[in-house]
Amino acid sequence: MEEKILRVNMAEQKITEEPVPEPYKSTGGRGITSRIILDEVEPTCHPLGKQNKLVIAAGILSGTKCPNSGRLSIGGKSPLTNGIKEANAGTPIAHQLASLGYKAIIVEDIPEGNEQYLLYLSDEGARLEPAGDLAGLGTYEFNGRIRERYHEKIYVLCIGPAGERLMRNAGISCNDPEGGPGRFAGRGGLGALMGSKKLKAIIFDTSKIFHAPIEEKEKFSEGSKKFVKILRENPISGEGLPKYGTNVLMNLVNEAGALPTKNFRFGTFEGADKVSGEELAARALSRGGVGTPTHNCHPGCVIRCSNIYPDEKGEALCSPIEYETAWALGPNLMIDDLDIIARLNRICNDLGLDTIEAGGALGVAMEAGIIPFGDGSGAIKLLEEVGQGTPLGHIIGQGADSVGKTYGVTRVATVKGQHLPAYDPRAIKGIGVTYAMTTMGADHTAGYSVTHNLLKAGGYVDPLKPEGQVKLSADLQVATAALDSFGLCIFVAFALLDNPEGWPTVVDIWNAKTGNNHSMDDILELGREVMRAEREFNKRVGFTSAHDRLPEFFRTEPLPPHNTVFDVKTEEMDEMNEQFNMYH
Amino acid sequence: MEEKILRVNMAEQKITEEPVPEPYKSTGGRGITSRIILDEVEPTCHPLGKQNKLVIAAGILSGTKCPNSGRLSIGGKSPLTNGIKEANAGTPIAHQLASLGYKAIIVEDIPEGNEQYLLYLSDEGARLEPAGDLAGLGTYEFNGRIRERYHEKIYVLCIGPAGERLMRNAGISCNDPEGGPGRFAGRGGLGALMGSKKLKAIIFDTSKIFHAPIEEKEKFSEGSKKFVKILRENPISGEGLPKYGTNVLMNLVNEAGALPTKNFRFGTFEGADKVSGEELAARALSRGGVGTPTHNCHPGCVIRCSNIYPDEKGEALCSPIEYETAWALGPNLMIDDLDIIARLNRICNDLGLDTIEAGGALGVAMEAGIIPFGDGSGAIKLLEEVGQGTPLGHIIGQGADSVGKTYGVTRVATVKGQHLPAYDPRAIKGIGVTYAMTTMGADHTAGYSVTHNLLKAGGYVDPLKPEGQVKLSADLQVATAALDSFGLCIFVAFALLDNPEGWPTVVDIWNAKTGNNHSMDDILELGREVMRAEREFNKRVGFTSAHDRLPEFFRTEPLPPHNTVFDVKTEEMDEMNEQFNMYH
Repeated sequence: MEEKILRVNMAEQKITEEPVPEPYKSTGGRGITSRIILDEVEPTCHPLGKQNKLVIAAGILSGTKCPNSGRLSIGGKSPLTNGIKEANAGTPIAHQLASLGYKAIIVEDIPEGNEQYLLYLSDEGARLEPAGDLAGLGTYEFNGRIRERYHEKIYVLCIGPAGERLMRNAGISCNDPEGGPGRFAGRGGLGALMGSKKLKAIIFDTSKIFHAPIEEKEKFSEGSKKFVKILRENPISGEGLPKYGTNVLMNLVNEAGALPTKNFRFGTFEGADKVSGEELAARALSRGGVGTPTHNCHPGCVIRCSNIYPDEKGEALCSPIEYETAWALGPNLMIDDLDIIARLNRICNDLGLDTIEAGGALGVAMEAGIIPFGDGSGAIKLLEEVGQGTPLGHIIGQGADSVGKTYGVTRVATVKGQHLPAYDPRAIKGIGVTYAMTTMGADHTAGYSVTHNLLKAGGYVDPLKPEGQVKLSADLQVATAALDSFGLCIFVAFALLDNPEGWPTVVDIWNAKTGNNHSMDDILELGREVMRAEREFNKRVGFTSAHDRLPEFFRTEPLPPHNTVFDVKTEEMDEMNEQFNMYH
Repeated sequence: MEEKILRVNMAEQKITEEPVPEPYKSTGGRGITSRIILDEVEPTCHPLGKQNKLVIAAGILSGTKCPNSGRLSIGGKSPLTNGIKEANAGTPIAHQLASLGYKAIIVEDIPEGNEQYLLYLSDEGARLEPAGDLAGLGTYEFNGRIRERYHEKIYVLCIGPAGERLMRNAGISCNDPEGGPGRFAGRGGLGALMGSKKLKAIIFDTSKIFHAPIEEKEKFSEGSKKFVKILRENPISGEGLPKYGTNVLMNLVNEAGALPTKNFRFGTFEGADKVSGEELAARALSRGGVGTPTHNCHPGCVIRCSNIYPDEKGEALCSPIEYETAWALGPNLMIDDLDIIARLNRICNDLGLDTIEAGGALGVAMEAGIIPFGDGSGAIKLLEEVGQGTPLGHIIGQGADSVGKTYGVTRVATVKGQHLPAYDPRAIKGIGVTYAMTTMGADHTAGYSVTHNLLKAGGYVDPLKPEGQVKLSADLQVATAALDSFGLCIFVAFALLDNPEGWPTVVDIWNAKTGNNHSMDDILELGREVMRAEREFNKRVGFTSAHDRLPEFFRTEPLPPHNTVFDVKTEEMDEMNEQFNMYH
């Protein structure tokens, strides 16, 4: 099977299959989305205009039984940050896209008129169909109705009303294995980009899921089995995450004094344990209905850190509640009630809003005095206004910076227009470097230093000291860019960092997949190349080192209880960045 | 009289007088505001945070009887563009500030608490007073009430509710000779910067107006008289502007096919003559009450292009209605009723909003479908919402980009976040270069190529061709930066460009004022130095040539009736800019 690129021109309603250009063949996922954006998108274009493109790509290892290889990369020029963006989600669709032989889908241009469209993909090829009365629906209802139109066994990638309304905090919903809409390529407003193309959804109608070509099948199978063992033996990916989900971090980060509370005023929250993963698991079990509190986001995942949160009657209310979501809609807002957090999370999923940014926006709204901190029902009302399309709803739906700018609030924790996630950079300084440096806007997943700063995976770098954080972050950024290109979940990193057989096993799997003879150096080069391409694009957009900065209050206002400020030297960060500024 | 700098620390409520540092002595106005910002303001700071500063300076020639030397420069890091900003207004205050011996006022830091303050300046010095119940007032009522608190013969610089609410489209109101609040340092959101300092107003209580020191009085007097003659002999500054005000341009620009109509869709407007300067003058005369339709904005002005627009009963409704205002609230919105334009203008003045940006914001609101194009009463309601502080009012009050981003509109004519004024860059291409290149965001006054492109003052450059526009704009930008440093009105430029005795006379006046022996080259160097300082600041903020661009639709969508696009080469603009990137 020759891999191909699917190009969908929305203005001409024309779909073409193209051979994969040579330089794209050796990469995948984020590696290919970022490269296509650099090659094809005018950097200074309006992100919601005709010249921007939406690129969807499966990882190098997607479509195979390599464990945890089902991350789908979605990229474009971000409506939120105005820079390059890749957001990925774990979903069966990653496997399906690779199994159908598509290296990437490129969606370009904008159709005339107000009709929205569906892109339907099956073993027979691709076609565009009018969305008709499916336009405007929330993701939950859309997912039900779309299965009435086709059949039960499809998987769906779609936007909600927020994306259709071109809100910069709109994400792209991807199905989990049960067909739920809760797996989001959430950050950077890619849902608004998809909305600007008037593409409501992409339907995957195929029974193929592990059909990607493999050069050396036996060696691949051996490597994958070994990788499963390595992941299961690691205490974080084998025990902590499977038992409590990512929200196992709530109590840990709180104990570390790094849980951003009341819009980044404090590092601890009194009600942390009430909204923790432990409490979530206990409720899931006691309210019944779902058996185990955790499940997988894509077939082949052996970590299973996702969860389903039941309401008081035991009915599924929301899936998943991630740590970052529980934080954004909880401690960040002084809300200590999991039921309210779950309700807010569900509204975000239904509208197609990124939960971190939504929590950020609500926090700034509280800062502006629109509702008081801790006001859960007020927060629900504000998110409902997003769905109603009121002026205030539009302000909130456009993200934290939008609320801050509209109401003149200076205490807004964003970098490049994207809100900081659930780790205070004054108490986990490595992640502060990542927030500032990455091309993506504040993004914990771009270089997750919580590994070394907190969990002591792969070594320890004191989270409260400025020393060593830049190198830590940069190394992790490179490794992450590689993982994102493979289509691997970043939670494999704990095992890769701790177990000396980890990375060599990934190298073996990669070589078995492609028939090449790569080394560990090639993996690092794969990551570096992604970072160089992304920085080159952002440079052409007009980003400079002056944009690689945290908001000023992180350097001036000490965070209790450690009373530290973010004091990593900017010169050190700028120097490290220079090495990624040499695209060739 | 030794000139001094007045430093007002709002946090400490402390006022100090400082000697003028050597490098500042030889400049004034924009030359000094921009230099102080470069020297004292952290470029990456939040424009509404403690680290930004508001700088107010009189021109080199302000406080003297040199004609048209009463422009007051106000600067800071712009809340609207995030870059350096200077906006100037013609007002008696320019003369008073210089007469009191202040080279500049620097307002810094932010006080605790919610109290707002007044800065009171008199012959005895300066003091801060609580604004008390004068906070929150519109500029009209404030100007009345402040005179009750002090006395009739004060002049006032203040912000309206928009500035107090930290809206990025807030300007700073300055008094005209009659004490009216309609002379604005409007652009770039400096009113929000003043609001962030909790400074409601500055009161000038002095009878001194032409008391600035002059080295060679007789020579100065001779030069000034000659300059008056030169200005009066020029057909534009001696006849067109005095007769009809700046709105004499409405019919001219319409005839040139360069009048941006319906949010920059067309270059002509059917109702142009109904909202022209000729019509305005006719109404002012026929409705009576004000005698002559034009008046001056500061003592010593011999052009007198300002006006007072009477309502149907002959009562003053608004002063002035400038061409750019009449355009922004007229043809831009498909409104052809001067009474409505005057009402919109008055609301802007009262709230303290820049009229160009307000018109831009209303146009984008119409683009978004919030109200239809041409809906005058809808436009009035939207501006009233700004005063009421509703969510939609906040969105509008934050300017055109805010409306565009909040509602996902891509057709937004802004550069660096500031809305384009009343000349379409596809049909007057020199001004398009200025919009794109200047550090100020889209600003016609920064390099007013309408001189050569349309009025044939100082030569002719075909407005529809790309050739020659970059040099034209750059030359005008340098000359303007010099005029803004002298405190001279840019309308002296027509005479300076046309009459070979013009610039030499300004050189003579400058030398008589300072006792130096400057040449024309020194004037150009004065201008270049300002541009270098401003570009250096913006570079440190993170601006690159990628930001020196017009919105993409100006390059892709031809403008009727000439059906031209903006096709000046970006390489040519970037090359020209390089020469201003060498600050030393």
